[in-house]
Amino acid sequence: MEQAGYSVEGESKVLEGMNRSAEVICVGTELLLGEVLNSNAQFLGQELARLGIPHFYQTVVGDNPTRIKRAIAIACQRAQLLIFTGGLGPTPDDLTTETLAEFFQAPLVQHPEILEDIAQKFAQRNRAPSPSNDKQALLPDSAAILPNPIGSAPGMIWHPRPELTILTFPGVPKEFHLMWQETAVPYLQDQGWVTAQIYNRVLRFWGIPESTLADQVAPLLALTNPTVAPYASRGEARLRISTRAASLETANQVIAPIEQQIRHLCGLHCFGADDQTLESVVGALLQEKGQTLAVAESCTGGGLGQRLTRISGSSEYFLGGVISYANTVKQDLLQVDPVALNQHGAVSAIVAEQMAAGVRSQLNSTWGISITGIAGPQGGTDTKPVGLVYIGLASPHHTQSFERQISPLRGRDWIRQLSASHALDLLRRQLLSNQA
Amino acid sequence: MEQAGYSVEGESKVLEGMNRSAEVICVGTELLLGEVLNSNAQFLGQELARLGIPHFYQTVVGDNPTRIKRAIAIACQRAQLLIFTGGLGPTPDDLTTETLAEFFQAPLVQHPEILEDIAQKFAQRNRAPSPSNDKQALLPDSAAILPNPIGSAPGMIWHPRPELTILTFPGVPKEFHLMWQETAVPYLQDQGWVTAQIYNRVLRFWGIPESTLADQVAPLLALTNPTVAPYASRGEARLRISTRAASLETANQVIAPIEQQIRHLCGLHCFGADDQTLESVVGALLQEKGQTLAVAESCTGGGLGQRLTRISGSSEYFLGGVISYANTVKQDLLQVDPVALNQHGAVSAIVAEQMAAGVRSQLNSTWGISITGIAGPQGGTDTKPVGLVYIGLASPHHTQSFERQISPLRGRDWIRQLSASHALDLLRRQLLSNQA
Repeated sequence: MEQAGYSVEGESKVLEGMNRSAEVICVGTELLLGEVLNSNAQFLGQELARLGIPHFYQTVVGDNPTRIKRAIAIACQRAQLLIFTGGLGPTPDDLTTETLAEFFQAPLVQHPEILEDIAQKFAQRNRAPSPSNDKQALLPDSAAILPNPIGSAPGMIWHPRPELTILTFPGVPKEFHLMWQETAVPYLQDQGWVTAQIYNRVLRFWGIPESTLADQVAPLLALTNPTVAPYASRGEARLRISTRAASLETANQVIAPIEQQIRHLCGLHCFGADDQTLESVVGALLQEKGQTLAVAESCTGGGLGQRLTRISGSSEYFLGGVISYANTVKQDLLQVDPVALNQHGAVSAIVAEQMAAGVRSQLNSTWGISITGIAGPQGGTDTKPVGLVYIGLASPHHTQSFERQISPLRGRDWIRQLSASHALDLLRRQLLSNQA
Repeated sequence: MEQAGYSVEGESKVLEGMNRSAEVICVGTELLLGEVLNSNAQFLGQELARLGIPHFYQTVVGDNPTRIKRAIAIACQRAQLLIFTGGLGPTPDDLTTETLAEFFQAPLVQHPEILEDIAQKFAQRNRAPSPSNDKQALLPDSAAILPNPIGSAPGMIWHPRPELTILTFPGVPKEFHLMWQETAVPYLQDQGWVTAQIYNRVLRFWGIPESTLADQVAPLLALTNPTVAPYASRGEARLRISTRAASLETANQVIAPIEQQIRHLCGLHCFGADDQTLESVVGALLQEKGQTLAVAESCTGGGLGQRLTRISGSSEYFLGGVISYANTVKQDLLQVDPVALNQHGAVSAIVAEQMAAGVRSQLNSTWGISITGIAGPQGGTDTKPVGLVYIGLASPHHTQSFERQISPLRGRDWIRQLSASHALDLLRRQLLSNQA
């Protein structure tokens, strides 16, 4: 097959352990028109796989009651758990709840507690709900509320007939994810849908391409339990170690030795696992050492600081920095030498070093880090092409710079994002080698 | 509704002008497992909408012949053009072609020209095809090759019976897109599928909730040509005006008067259209006036600068700024008064004003803008809850501040993102009211 995936035998092994299955129905003309990427279907796919719940079809249908009913009719012949996303909003084309009620000929009743909850949420934002929000309080008479902790649209848990469960969720991914984790997963566990889970451990790498990584760990890719699969995401190479187990503890016994082998094979290239990021790993190292960091950003325009401060508590080690987009700012706030700027240009090793040293001394931090580069699409030359980036790194002992050439093919955002990742990775390696 | 979408009437009017329709079937267990985001479905949705080809359902099915056949059986009852992606590779679980042949009881024949083409492509990479590639040369006897200029798997154009067209494509997006543009679109034009295109104009709003916006333009939401549909995205309210027309010029004649009416009704709340963003609109206004901007960021940590510099050419008006995450940086680099910091705290109107004035004077810019707030999840108090943000705005004439309370429910990233949007919007309104 052309993309990642289980083998056919794999599918039957992994998915067909049960004789009940789930089916996903995403409602929204915006999905058919391609205005919204259907990340909800991907999320559900991952979650159902993780929980070991078989799932064989996904359907996307527009905001049209006749066609939604046709999709329901087909799905409830094939599956016992129907999961709907979208169509729970306040406007006339949000039709999921009322169409389901109509299909199963159930009356809708108004839930005053939903109305109250909506009013409270609006009040927090100093607003009042509009009459159109009223319909969000209507559910089929035998349905239970599936609470939405952050948005106005609740979902429902409904058994319109024996052996059929319907869950509905709003299309807004953040609301959907929270409702799924907080209410739906415990409910499905309770109802015996979750028999064995698939446990994954994702190891994350920087500074090594996916193909090289795959070659380095080649014998492990042939394992069957756990399985080891390489993939790439946002310039990062990753290895997913997966096993199906009855508990986290059993899973860890299978996964841990393989993780150790991989870490041993790959050394410093592996920067973390699961939801660790370059910025969280750098932050933890700084905090551990009681050291501080300041940034001087040119082409990233604040993106490195933005990433460092995504971590709640980053004020413990991140002091701030200077966005020196204009050369005058490099001179005035970072003491970059105008002669160096003139002779070597703003995108040069020496200017990167002076920026890093300047921000370190101005902010009185342990470390100073700088980025100056050509993000494009304009501004490249033969000697300094688009994607050329210099990263400066100043410690109490010395100041260095590093050159990186990022492929210009994927555009300005990509170059800026990778520049910040390279900077974080360089600092991480310095912190691990005890250079300050 | 929570995401983009037509009204029901809108959908039927816009999409049902023809009595033939297309249907999308994406084949791949990797899609069901959520390992791959289904961007092919989005691409097809956009393309079919652009070409005015009605399309009401999308189905995802795994690499399983029985289930693929069930999906075919359902789809060919509902649609006259079936578009398949995925399952054309060389491995045993790539089953699309052979399953289609089986379903329609057509014999497979080998095409030597495909084998030759595959061999040539492998030779270019100094490799030889493996025996498993042989199956990629098999097509139903009456099918035509849909050439793949860059990959090994060709697709097909097939009429297994009258009034039914099947197109197949590999799942690799790059190959699929090229094959779609080079062969499928001209073919569909030739076959009379492309009669008129749908043209959209999306108006974008800040400072008005979707429901209020919908109320303000309520009579327009009932229009049938063009249709007007509200939706929300990242805190922004949007209105999509759509019409089906033979040319862009005709479409504009229908859309422009409605756009004018909406802009008249909503005034300054409408900040732009289509791919304009708050940062691009602010940038264009600054450039037009020959003015410059500097930022002082606390809780956003660089995110405002990062957004401003996403625009290539932003160095014309954006000088840079100071990320004053620590209070010492607010004092040392922005001349914020330590007494004000002590008495009012870092998150206060007066500190926001001093930060804005400080960065404006340090960087010698026309405008200084600052953000200080509590991004959470920790750090909130009764009087200063998570989500409270002050934005300072300094012009040559005076300095002001604005308070915003962002809902804490959607988390730290959301608060930081909306803080930056509020800041850009405040500056936009000042620039439009000629305050500098």
